Amino acid sequence: MASSAFARLDELARRLHALDHAVSILAADEATHMAPGGGEDRADALAVLSGMRHRMATAPQVADWIGEAQEEALGEEQALALREFRRVHRNLTCLPAGFVERQTHARLRCEQLWRALRARNDWAGFAPALEGVVALVREEAALRAEALGLSPYDALMEQYDPGARMAEVAPLLDDLKTFLAGFVPRALDAQERRLAGRPKMPLAGSYPVEKQRELGLSMMAALGFDLSRGSLSVSHHPFCGGVPSDVRITTRYRSDEFLSALMGTLHETGHALYEQNLPRQWAHWPLGQARGMAIHESQSLFVEKQIGRNPAFWRWALPAVERHLGVGLTLDDILPRIHRVERGLIRVDADEVTYPLHIVLRFELERALVEGALDVADLPEAWDEKMRALLGLSTLDNPADGPMQDVHWPSAAFGYFPSYTLGAMIAAQLWAAIERDHPDIDGDLAAGRFERLNEWRRERIWSLGSRLSTPELIRHATGEALDAAHMKRHLERRYGG
Amino acid sequence: MASSAFARLDELARRLHALDHAVSILAADEATHMAPGGGEDRADALAVLSGMRHRMATAPQVADWIGEAQEEALGEEQALALREFRRVHRNLTCLPAGFVERQTHARLRCEQLWRALRARNDWAGFAPALEGVVALVREEAALRAEALGLSPYDALMEQYDPGARMAEVAPLLDDLKTFLAGFVPRALDAQERRLAGRPKMPLAGSYPVEKQRELGLSMMAALGFDLSRGSLSVSHHPFCGGVPSDVRITTRYRSDEFLSALMGTLHETGHALYEQNLPRQWAHWPLGQARGMAIHESQSLFVEKQIGRNPAFWRWALPAVERHLGVGLTLDDILPRIHRVERGLIRVDADEVTYPLHIVLRFELERALVEGALDVADLPEAWDEKMRALLGLSTLDNPADGPMQDVHWPSAAFGYFPSYTLGAMIAAQLWAAIERDHPDIDGDLAAGRFERLNEWRRERIWSLGSRLSTPELIRHATGEALDAAHMKRHLERRYGG
Repeated sequence: MASSAFARLDELARRLHALDHAVSILAADEATHMAPGGGEDRADALAVLSGMRHRMATAPQVADWIGEAQEEALGEEQALALREFRRVHRNLTCLPAGFVERQTHARLRCEQLWRALRARNDWAGFAPALEGVVALVREEAALRAEALGLSPYDALMEQYDPGARMAEVAPLLDDLKTFLAGFVPRALDAQERRLAGRPKMPLAGSYPVEKQRELGLSMMAALGFDLSRGSLSVSHHPFCGGVPSDVRITTRYRSDEFLSALMGTLHETGHALYEQNLPRQWAHWPLGQARGMAIHESQSLFVEKQIGRNPAFWRWALPAVERHLGVGLTLDDILPRIHRVERGLIRVDADEVTYPLHIVLRFELERALVEGALDVADLPEAWDEKMRALLGLSTLDNPADGPMQDVHWPSAAFGYFPSYTLGAMIAAQLWAAIERDHPDIDGDLAAGRFERLNEWRRERIWSLGSRLSTPELIRHATGEALDAAHMKRHLERRYGG
Repeated sequence: MASSAFARLDELARRLHALDHAVSILAADEATHMAPGGGEDRADALAVLSGMRHRMATAPQVADWIGEAQEEALGEEQALALREFRRVHRNLTCLPAGFVERQTHARLRCEQLWRALRARNDWAGFAPALEGVVALVREEAALRAEALGLSPYDALMEQYDPGARMAEVAPLLDDLKTFLAGFVPRALDAQERRLAGRPKMPLAGSYPVEKQRELGLSMMAALGFDLSRGSLSVSHHPFCGGVPSDVRITTRYRSDEFLSALMGTLHETGHALYEQNLPRQWAHWPLGQARGMAIHESQSLFVEKQIGRNPAFWRWALPAVERHLGVGLTLDDILPRIHRVERGLIRVDADEVTYPLHIVLRFELERALVEGALDVADLPEAWDEKMRALLGLSTLDNPADGPMQDVHWPSAAFGYFPSYTLGAMIAAQLWAAIERDHPDIDGDLAAGRFERLNEWRRERIWSLGSRLSTPELIRHATGEALDAAHMKRHLERRYGG
């Protein structure tokens, strides 16, 4: 092999990229177009392809090539690409193969049990499997911490949001928690006053799916989604998948109301815009890929919450709704629905005011689980105690809506939950920065013009791929470190009354 | 590695199968659901995955494993699986890697030129590229012949129909050619007499695509297509793709008539039934896969021609058409359309009477090209001469509808054309054998009952996968070697007047 080590890594990156392409499309296809009987073969094929990818990415010579490439004369871009490749490689190789196998086995088993037992509200049957997963996560966190020189929980977060550290994240979430303790009751009071004496507005009606789909497509296009490089389908859970040149978003329709499908479409459009605007040049290297979960979520929430629940947006959107669905609504009809605040047990159903409290609860509990300060046996009580303190609700006799609510823990995805609320905070901070640069930006929304918003994000976020760590990217885009003040101000303005 | 050589081959087969799964679904997806802008990335990914598959399948140790496995104590099934694996491996490895690269390059270039220049009827621009492909095909045939101990053209056919030999195929096609020389004018006369004085029946109308799709799905289901393990979509050219647990067939619709979409659906359903009924046990080995192109085509033509153009079938199908499309037709309306005979220039538009003459023309010309008896420079005249002799039509000033008509030669697929007409002959012979076993089988068609037909084919063809060579399978299923007499009798009966 006469080529440079960097060229060998480039060739490897191309192969891994082709496998990733296949896995992404197969996964999106599975949820949208696959025949139901194809599931078993598809699972087998995906498992083999993922194993193949892992072996290729972690083959012993790859570490040598990375080492050799660091000695080669590289351009600035190549050096960046190599640095990011090395980071991903380190995260991928810091667990011994035998450990990964044990963990995969425990995880798959626990996910299966979770699916079966959540429906039966059977915590006692589920807990031993979760205990096994938690034991292995503690081991994983220690192994990652050792390899990366980080604390155990930081080492877990590092997989999802490079550079995210508990020292910064915990104070941000604490700040929000303290704020929300007072703000949630205030927002609920304000809501009650706003709606007092007003008739319950029925958005209920009959909305043909095909018309809703056309409305969704027209909004996607207006927001900048390139329909020649992506599509909108239907799946049980909305998602954004596929590849940057063929981004597949989905939503689900109810024929008795249109907001759930539409808001889902807006959320996934936010993810899709990020993917469609990543730098093509490094598409097959980690450098060309999106920067982690919090930033990705910030892009979806930017479109869904900052744009899509902004009253100015609805001045433009309501006539579009009328054109497509034939229903004439006013701002007074729609705002109570899209700004509805309600304390509830279920994270994925929560509004943007109460949602962070669901994350705070999980963040505090999973840290304690990882650090060994909490055991699975005590989880239902600990969950209940926090749920009562944060939202005034109890789940003690309802573990299915308590600690059995999410797939994350059964899947061994500890350190992921903060990304959701970090994403919401980043989105609010981006909006504040854009308002600073373009004080008249609400006028763009009201006119259905999204070019300035997109240009701003393209330049500061999308085009950077993985050049910067998560905190660096936030600072680069907004001129300051992540600060909960923007999120608090956003909530005050929209929900403070 | 402590496992047996056979176990290592089994593991390899699983990996190749996963890559094949990915490539099959990605290819079907490309024609049905991919965003138009995704084509370039998709082509890159497919090229890398195919290269990866080729390297894995032809790695030096694979030949060793095959050799070692032959020394191991294997069960009967395993020995069969190994034999077929070895055959595929030999066909895959008999060309040096450098040659494959040169050929791939020439082929892709020639296909691109074909697409661009066929539309402009530019033979002069296209011929040099085809000359390059033909030169390499001659080289390929010699290499394959040397490795397999076959004649050059037989070595090419061996890729598509294992066991097919010119010594048997040429007399069969000659037999049909001689028969059709007299029969085509006779069938045209008979058609003229049948239709004389009858008003031109307008099948033209307005047929909503969704209704046509429902009609197609209901016929697929009736014919035995398992809709839980497959689907029907739309694509520019109808095809049958996907994987046995998720068979994806497509058709295309015109809103002004329904027969083209429906007959396309029936054809692909024939392919699909074969795939859905292959033996699951050896699915990841070549043994579990369909036996070559001629047999596959026989299954599609069995459904499209033997069943789908049988008047008995239409006694059942016409009420279904009326139910779905609201149009009341009689046998006298439909039979002239589905039994229409017409001399034409285009192979893919030809009816079942004249189609074999298109194949005879290509078979004779491509043999001469491979053997060096004909050069590309002389192809337009040679084509024209045969087209005039066989069908009384000239293409001399119209190469786009002459030697530039098909993608096969630009793609270096020489030795493939006979499969089409072998398939038609096999289908006719299968039908004759079934009629022998079940003299009342027309009654099944008229009642929309396909179980006995399917059981017969499942037992004798589908469940065998690749256990037998093409000629062995025909003999196994019908009790005799392939004989053009059945095809001639079929055409006589349906078109002889």
